[in-house]
Amino acid sequence: MKLTQNIILTFILALTMFSCKKENGVNADKESKTIMSQEHPKLILTTQGVSAIRAQLGNIPIFDNTLKMVKDEIDAEIASGIEVPMPKDYSGGYTHSRHKRNWFVLQKAGVLYQILEDEKYAKYVKDMLMQYEEMYKTLPLHPKTRSYARGKLFWQCLNDSNWLVYVSQAYDCIYNYLTEEERNKLETNLFKPFADHISVDSPQFYQRVHNHSTWGNAAVGMIGLVMDDEELIQRALYGIKGLTLERTAKDDDGGFLNKDGKAGFLANIEEPFSPDGYYNEGPYYQRYAMYPFLVFAVGLHNVKPEVKIFDFKEGVLLKSVHALLNLSDADGEFFPLNDGQKGMSYYNSALVTAVDISYHYGNQDPGLLGIAKEQDQVLLDDSGLAVAIGIKNEKTKSFNKKSTNLSDGSDGNQGGIGILRRKGLELVFKYASQGSSHGHYDKLSYSLYENGEEIIQDYGLARFVNIEQKGGGNYLKENKTWAKQTIAHNTVTLNETSHFQGKYEIGNQHHSELNYFSFENKNVQVISAKENNAYPGTQMLRTIAIIKDEDFEKPYMLDIMKLISKKANQYDFPYYFFGQVLQTNFEYHTSDILKPLGRKNGYQHLFIEAKGYASKDNTKFSWMNNKSFYTLTTLTSKKDQLFFTRIGANDPEFNLRRDPSLLLRRKNTKNTTFVSTIEAHGSYSTVTESALNSNSSISELKVVLDTAEYTGISIKNVNGTTKLFITANKNALKEARHSLKINDENYEWSGSYYFK
Amino acid sequence: MKLTQNIILTFILALTMFSCKKENGVNADKESKTIMSQEHPKLILTTQGVSAIRAQLGNIPIFDNTLKMVKDEIDAEIASGIEVPMPKDYSGGYTHSRHKRNWFVLQKAGVLYQILEDEKYAKYVKDMLMQYEEMYKTLPLHPKTRSYARGKLFWQCLNDSNWLVYVSQAYDCIYNYLTEEERNKLETNLFKPFADHISVDSPQFYQRVHNHSTWGNAAVGMIGLVMDDEELIQRALYGIKGLTLERTAKDDDGGFLNKDGKAGFLANIEEPFSPDGYYNEGPYYQRYAMYPFLVFAVGLHNVKPEVKIFDFKEGVLLKSVHALLNLSDADGEFFPLNDGQKGMSYYNSALVTAVDISYHYGNQDPGLLGIAKEQDQVLLDDSGLAVAIGIKNEKTKSFNKKSTNLSDGSDGNQGGIGILRRKGLELVFKYASQGSSHGHYDKLSYSLYENGEEIIQDYGLARFVNIEQKGGGNYLKENKTWAKQTIAHNTVTLNETSHFQGKYEIGNQHHSELNYFSFENKNVQVISAKENNAYPGTQMLRTIAIIKDEDFEKPYMLDIMKLISKKANQYDFPYYFFGQVLQTNFEYHTSDILKPLGRKNGYQHLFIEAKGYASKDNTKFSWMNNKSFYTLTTLTSKKDQLFFTRIGANDPEFNLRRDPSLLLRRKNTKNTTFVSTIEAHGSYSTVTESALNSNSSISELKVVLDTAEYTGISIKNVNGTTKLFITANKNALKEARHSLKINDENYEWSGSYYFK
Repeated sequence: MKLTQNIILTFILALTMFSCKKENGVNADKESKTIMSQEHPKLILTTQGVSAIRAQLGNIPIFDNTLKMVKDEIDAEIASGIEVPMPKDYSGGYTHSRHKRNWFVLQKAGVLYQILEDEKYAKYVKDMLMQYEEMYKTLPLHPKTRSYARGKLFWQCLNDSNWLVYVSQAYDCIYNYLTEEERNKLETNLFKPFADHISVDSPQFYQRVHNHSTWGNAAVGMIGLVMDDEELIQRALYGIKGLTLERTAKDDDGGFLNKDGKAGFLANIEEPFSPDGYYNEGPYYQRYAMYPFLVFAVGLHNVKPEVKIFDFKEGVLLKSVHALLNLSDADGEFFPLNDGQKGMSYYNSALVTAVDISYHYGNQDPGLLGIAKEQDQVLLDDSGLAVAIGIKNEKTKSFNKKSTNLSDGSDGNQGGIGILRRKGLELVFKYASQGSSHGHYDKLSYSLYENGEEIIQDYGLARFVNIEQKGGGNYLKENKTWAKQTIAHNTVTLNETSHFQGKYEIGNQHHSELNYFSFENKNVQVISAKENNAYPGTQMLRTIAIIKDEDFEKPYMLDIMKLISKKANQYDFPYYFFGQVLQTNFEYHTSDILKPLGRKNGYQHLFIEAKGYASKDNTKFSWMNNKSFYTLTTLTSKKDQLFFTRIGANDPEFNLRRDPSLLLRRKNTKNTTFVSTIEAHGSYSTVTESALNSNSSISELKVVLDTAEYTGISIKNVNGTTKLFITANKNALKEARHSLKINDENYEWSGSYYFK
Repeated sequence: MKLTQNIILTFILALTMFSCKKENGVNADKESKTIMSQEHPKLILTTQGVSAIRAQLGNIPIFDNTLKMVKDEIDAEIASGIEVPMPKDYSGGYTHSRHKRNWFVLQKAGVLYQILEDEKYAKYVKDMLMQYEEMYKTLPLHPKTRSYARGKLFWQCLNDSNWLVYVSQAYDCIYNYLTEEERNKLETNLFKPFADHISVDSPQFYQRVHNHSTWGNAAVGMIGLVMDDEELIQRALYGIKGLTLERTAKDDDGGFLNKDGKAGFLANIEEPFSPDGYYNEGPYYQRYAMYPFLVFAVGLHNVKPEVKIFDFKEGVLLKSVHALLNLSDADGEFFPLNDGQKGMSYYNSALVTAVDISYHYGNQDPGLLGIAKEQDQVLLDDSGLAVAIGIKNEKTKSFNKKSTNLSDGSDGNQGGIGILRRKGLELVFKYASQGSSHGHYDKLSYSLYENGEEIIQDYGLARFVNIEQKGGGNYLKENKTWAKQTIAHNTVTLNETSHFQGKYEIGNQHHSELNYFSFENKNVQVISAKENNAYPGTQMLRTIAIIKDEDFEKPYMLDIMKLISKKANQYDFPYYFFGQVLQTNFEYHTSDILKPLGRKNGYQHLFIEAKGYASKDNTKFSWMNNKSFYTLTTLTSKKDQLFFTRIGANDPEFNLRRDPSLLLRRKNTKNTTFVSTIEAHGSYSTVTESALNSNSSISELKVVLDTAEYTGISIKNVNGTTKLFITANKNALKEARHSLKINDENYEWSGSYYFK
């Protein structure tokens, strides 16, 4: 159904430039399918799509520009000659970079051949493939031995799979240009053994639910679709038939290889994606996995429409594109949840793929055209054409990022991620599951942004991806000793020990639980979640609100972390701010000798720059960053210690950034509630040298009630007005009715929280 | 002459929009002068200028937009009512901010009255001035006592002078709107005593060569011009008649109050500006002084053309605008030489004044229109009109910043500043005089920029201007203990002691001397200067080149610091880089306890993060910042120590930034030559995650010759090519002929250096 609609649609588009989604082509279904499986291209580009593209060329600016850019790039490559060197290097080295470059070049040259009908591109692809064929048929395992699954062209099967995902597209594009003999030669000596190496010969890589395996499955499946090899297609969709791995084996990152025996492309969609489209490893890895997920899906959609891949799991693949876009800040950069390199954004080519495919095969959301316009390029295929026409026809709207709660877990019942947005302020709250081997031990942590700049940062990963000089571009040991540890995050650490003792086996069994979220009133957005397993015997309940109150210049964050424990603990509560310390209302003492805060679990990486004790009920700390002012107000007692820390201790190779934090320490305490606000306020200009609104607007923060059922906080403005926020710690359903008395005053309301 | 040309010009502009510089109006000279001194406005706006502006309104976009912006601003002010509070606060406090705001508002409202002919603006100015009159006639000294020269409206005379510089313009604009009685009242009770307070009553402020005095002189002079008070005008131009201050007295910053008895506006032009237009305190303070220099000059030009102020000292005032613009980086931000707050740029309103006046009263440089366009606003006066018409008539060119050598000293013979520019790389080399009380002890220091971003930084000042929370926005004590010290700069420190022992009295007697500069060949730009007084008995000769060699991706810096000393010293040679350490070719050891590098002269503020010894003849260090790669290659012996340091020790209030450096230490050495290159190379993208050209292109740096006459360095590229650079340490005249033998090879050339 969808397939034929699409074919007809493309024709109509080509002729009239009006889309016509309701056209029906049931009778053509079987026929077109038979045609499809014999015609080439059929995988990503289709013969119909190519005709439509050719008809529109010169008339679709964003497509035309992308085409010109790609043509210039490939013409330069062709001019500089083919290089297929004997594999030798790790990532960053010459042979690695060259083979990586080749996969992109092959895919693009194939597309150019189809669109421009210039045989030089087909010949170039053929010549290079023949050189690969010549080399591959006698190629041993890659000489570098570090990977748990060595490839042949590359040091790891993962990169071999990358290669095949792209090169299968190139092969599809020049399939009809080749003689049958040439095709046989390539399939027999290159593609089939290549697919076998990354699957049956590397089950520890292939037979899993993991982003690596997704690439493997897609690679095998895509070449299978082009070659019309049903065995490979089945292997791609369902894994290697009859093979079960040992369930307790682990991979290099410390994750289980295959805990529950699931494998294949469908399982790789089923498992890691929640029904809301959140990918359990987080946005950085979702971005990486998106490409094979979506291009193989398009291939399946085109060649095996009966799989109904875009309907699979209630259409989660396309939903996940919206989820991923919502997981980016105002600059389009993904929130660095779990292992995530900062700066990765929806300008990445995988997101061009995701946005175009989601637009074309989804419901033509005009907001996606807004993102595509920012990306300033499209795919050179059917979906890129649809986007280009949409933009040309002025259907573009800006993509409206909303406050969102994204459930985690394949059934959506393993916690989640909340994103609260209001007037430039963005808060990301994490109460998800472990996030597989790339997960961090940071239950109920958050990070806070203003206009795309970090106010309170999540550290991200300790890795310089593809920068050879830093551990070959791979994960650095500080990723384990620092970045994954709880103290590296904006949440509470008990007794200098990470959540779940920092153990994957334990963390992977648990997830936090939503108490409630409420985004209806855009001026009071709240999310609340609890975590009872990170520290056995201790219950953590965190409620975070973004409040835009008329008495404040900008929205502020209210943060209530309620802890109930069977025993007395030391609670460490850090704020990873950026910038320059302006003012505190407590005395601190700097030392001219800096020592680490602790010896393990991340504490060994923090230098103590200064320490002191809280001297007021409200501890205040103001700082300046990016020409804005910020103030933390937090409830304290005189026994509370305060540390200014800086990352960088026990870092023998300067692998960590020297970033600061303020850390609040409460010792020897059973039950306690941390209550804080963070205000963004005012601005400074280095040009006019004027400082506007550089002081906090909060004169007093007070707990007026704190029971198992409710926590009530009053927030007094410097102008004298006072607001009361009460959160339901239990029974927080939207329709629940509450009634309570505080200081002889009655409060009645229905819903999760009270604010007035 | 100039005046009448200008009047005629303005008329012609208004009528035809063609300029006609050659028009002559000698006969009208006397008559117009007489008219001018009776007509109002005459100071900055002129009656002729106002007519021309009115005629063009609606037809001059940048002027119209500025006018609208100013009108909106002042209408809002008028709506919110007049506030003239009793003076009470320091900078940043309410009364300070309000009176400061008032001076701008008055000046703008006056201009609006003239241009729009709407009496509400005149009335507003009058009403506010009358409130000032009412208050001022009984106003005591400002209650805050910190200043060496207390004002009445403000805590320091400086700000009172700021007020009068602006308000005299407002008074001029509504002069004819007032009755004679009203004028008498204002002049008798407000303006005259105000001018007296900041001059005859505050000679320690007024009777100097200093940027403070410039404001004082201009304030007195401008109100004198409006009031036609010849006594005030003479006092402004030449200082307080018959008054000589004690020559050894010092001001708050440690500078002499008045060492040589000079005073008055003309002396304030004569002394601090070099013939090239360099202002001896550096660009940050030049920017601050520009406004009174130029607006009083315009006033003089209009009312007292016989002074020929724009011809004074061969036209240095207008020249200085070009010098100042050249002292900014690619983003328009001024190089933070001496005390300078980073981020101050030519977007500051003082530079709008400077650019417009320089365009109109200078030679209509179309490059200035380029800056004006970036500033996106003009002055609402005759010069702003000229700029607006120039832009409208498409005369705009982009301002071409060039490699420049700017001499320092009133006669241009006290060293200077060299700025070398090539393909995005900018190097600022300082071999100037002390720079008055705002000078730093940093002879032969440099900073290096790429596309407006700092590669090797100058720290700037230790102050948060107008940020009340940081020491009231004033200079912090770390400005003396750190920012001014030699070790805070990219130059050599001997024996852990600053140049001139960090003493102003000594530093102020000396200046460095140019050896040569050569910018003819844009691919090999060189500057060379010597300093023999910073450390008695030690000669420092530094030669820095920016070389664009075909075998390198980008230009690189070659730096040769030759030291000849009578005794053995410890030489410390820091590189204040920014960003992440990538790789070194020497071993270093980090410590888990950080200690300061020393105890005084700035050393107490540096933590040692790591230390090691050079292990090769060429020590290499690569880092990454702003997605670019950088490599330092420096000649070392195995006795050379290397420290990674970080600023921040002994900083009890977090007044300093935590910035890193690599410091090379050579102990117990008499004569030595530090030879280094810094390459900018390649790039990293967090979106594609690809690292391009991340390695240095230099395989070996070698001294092939080092005598009193010549230093020769060979630079070998990783591709095998070798270049030789020889600099003449003496006899470096352009026309000098050189002949020498190195390793049996003869080299002959004429000029300052050899490169092949």
